[in-house]
Amino acid sequence: MTLINENYLKLQAGYLFPEIGRRRRAFQQANQKAKIISMGIGDVTQPLAPAVTEAMKKAVEEMGRKETFRGYDDGGIGYEFLRKAISENDFASRGVDIDIDEIVVSDGAKCDTGNIQEIFSLGNVVAVSDPVYPVYVDTNVMAGRTGGPAEQGRYEGIIYMPCTERNNFVPAPPKEKADLIYLCFPNNPTGAVATKEQLSEWVEYAGKNKAIILFDAAYEEFISEPDIPHSIFEVDGAREVAIEFRSFSKTAGFTGVRCAFTVVPKQLKAYTKDGRAVEVGPIWKRRQCTKFNGVSYITQVGAAAVYTEQGKKQIQETIDIYMGNACLIRDTLTRIGYTVYGGVNAPYIWLKTPEGTGSWEFFDKLLTQAHVVTTPGAGFGAAGEGFVRLTAFGQPDDVKEALERIREIS
Amino acid sequence: MTLINENYLKLQAGYLFPEIGRRRRAFQQANQKAKIISMGIGDVTQPLAPAVTEAMKKAVEEMGRKETFRGYDDGGIGYEFLRKAISENDFASRGVDIDIDEIVVSDGAKCDTGNIQEIFSLGNVVAVSDPVYPVYVDTNVMAGRTGGPAEQGRYEGIIYMPCTERNNFVPAPPKEKADLIYLCFPNNPTGAVATKEQLSEWVEYAGKNKAIILFDAAYEEFISEPDIPHSIFEVDGAREVAIEFRSFSKTAGFTGVRCAFTVVPKQLKAYTKDGRAVEVGPIWKRRQCTKFNGVSYITQVGAAAVYTEQGKKQIQETIDIYMGNACLIRDTLTRIGYTVYGGVNAPYIWLKTPEGTGSWEFFDKLLTQAHVVTTPGAGFGAAGEGFVRLTAFGQPDDVKEALERIREIS
Repeated sequence: MTLINENYLKLQAGYLFPEIGRRRRAFQQANQKAKIISMGIGDVTQPLAPAVTEAMKKAVEEMGRKETFRGYDDGGIGYEFLRKAISENDFASRGVDIDIDEIVVSDGAKCDTGNIQEIFSLGNVVAVSDPVYPVYVDTNVMAGRTGGPAEQGRYEGIIYMPCTERNNFVPAPPKEKADLIYLCFPNNPTGAVATKEQLSEWVEYAGKNKAIILFDAAYEEFISEPDIPHSIFEVDGAREVAIEFRSFSKTAGFTGVRCAFTVVPKQLKAYTKDGRAVEVGPIWKRRQCTKFNGVSYITQVGAAAVYTEQGKKQIQETIDIYMGNACLIRDTLTRIGYTVYGGVNAPYIWLKTPEGTGSWEFFDKLLTQAHVVTTPGAGFGAAGEGFVRLTAFGQPDDVKEALERIREIS
Repeated sequence: MTLINENYLKLQAGYLFPEIGRRRRAFQQANQKAKIISMGIGDVTQPLAPAVTEAMKKAVEEMGRKETFRGYDDGGIGYEFLRKAISENDFASRGVDIDIDEIVVSDGAKCDTGNIQEIFSLGNVVAVSDPVYPVYVDTNVMAGRTGGPAEQGRYEGIIYMPCTERNNFVPAPPKEKADLIYLCFPNNPTGAVATKEQLSEWVEYAGKNKAIILFDAAYEEFISEPDIPHSIFEVDGAREVAIEFRSFSKTAGFTGVRCAFTVVPKQLKAYTKDGRAVEVGPIWKRRQCTKFNGVSYITQVGAAAVYTEQGKKQIQETIDIYMGNACLIRDTLTRIGYTVYGGVNAPYIWLKTPEGTGSWEFFDKLLTQAHVVTTPGAGFGAAGEGFVRLTAFGQPDDVKEALERIREIS
């Protein structure tokens, strides 16, 4: 008799975004004339940069000719031309030395941050911030690293670190011993960033506990303040304790194209039960070359074009559009009288709901009265209750109209 | 202290293809003038069909315009236009009724056949054929469903079903009770196919034991004999007991583009420990929408073009080239005096090594004397010892030259 993995049955309700989609469709069906504007799901709206599309079209043509056709990306960890561009532009340019052998290209940071836990023992204690990107938690639930959901929907066995107005949404290391710590800065959903000093505290904590930090830097390109680190590897000692995740999704509009990468430094070790140190890098590569088969050549060519002079300029223009939106959202909502966080070094604005209004209640109010889709903070964890997340990824005209509608109903 | 998943340490040596690559590179380095021809790794060589590249270029252009740009593939299970084309062309055309909601598009059959085990309990007993595509076994080892490697490199806890000349490389259901059974027809690596009667036996076995058949049909497009089923769902009762994996990799030359799909029928159930039936389809979708984020829009447009009139014609021409190779390989090797199997309904030829010659020994002989890369049968399992796999995916001129060289040293 085939037994199901019962850990899946512990998962609560639908995954957050399908539930939002469901409510949106239901409202649209009942109000067919309503022009709904999404400020919810973190999807981009600006087209791919011309440098990227030109490169991809050429790559498609190469794939159509016998002489230049490419099959499997041998080893499945990414073409050297892309890993070299990443190493030079994302790291060397900031004084961080990352070898191309430490970079593994993939089809998304969601996949990587979801899959990474597989290479670690089920016995490890996981720590996440609260609110949190649901993928970190759900993939650990599915793997069997937790109990069922308990108080406030929190899963037994996970250490939740509340991110609140009081700690400016950056948690300090916990008193308990955690083994795998998920950190995301610039943060999804709060838009908060960590200073070098704050990250240093984490690196020190991890070093002391032989823990590993899983650092999601998918939004680093949105950092505008000069002193904020873009990579955890800008912090001394991080190479011994951290894995970093990066993505082309938000930076270069690749949400529908799918390309990302993970950096596992050569110094990073995990341990066997009897205390023997094992290099993590080769284990991650083994996982990828067995359960994954590389990213489309066409996609990798497009990703490499992001690092050309033209590409960089065009990407920056797109980011400027989004950060212009972020600024407008912050300013307008503040003027209306709301309290908002984020939006300076991140494409996310964390809006405090009016006193006594729950996240989903405020979500429904914005949907049904302003026809604006947001993301309820409670969907990201108990400490997200009382907030909704707005994203800066909309078309500027839509953002303006959405803000105008919110003003009208506020 | 972060503990590693020690199941990874049970894995033997390198994954087969990296080891072949290593030997090939070592030989090439020592013999720089040798023109090595690969008949080993199952990678294609013919370019993408013009119908596919035209469609993909248009899709790239769409992605470069604000009005037609697409972000996330909502839900991540594949665009309806592709799932509809699959349902109609791959199934309805053969009298099989597969709803588009039963189809989940992915970035590769390797990923799908590797990931599927995650949704089932670690307590299930796995059965595989021997020889076997290593991914089925290795992913179960990594998950912790086996002991360490024992006699003949077989992992404890797995039921191995030898595929030999005696059973014409199609195993009968075992006497033991297996819960998850991996079957692959047309078979990689032996090139064998199963008749409808043989598949019916398996469906009956699975029904009786409430087991699930994981049916890898990645090579169905190469079937030339009219009575051989292309899908396990051509067999009565299979909807209750089987999941089917398909791929565009070999059919349409997508090894470097990455697109595949999995069919989980609505009737398929697995069980909780206390005997409650659970629908498998929603659990697979939940896995995919949490740990995966959909396939590139551009890739999906390319895949859909495979089903256009032009696309079908062009794809068939490519398959004819490969099957022409297969025929030539079979005929030539037989004439030289070798015993060969497969190559009629599959792009794989299973060559029996000369009496007393081991697989790796024969691999080395062909590499060093004929400069031809094959795949040692022993790399696919103990019962593959005494065979090497040749693939029909080469350029016809290369295949001719390789066969000529093999003739000379034989």
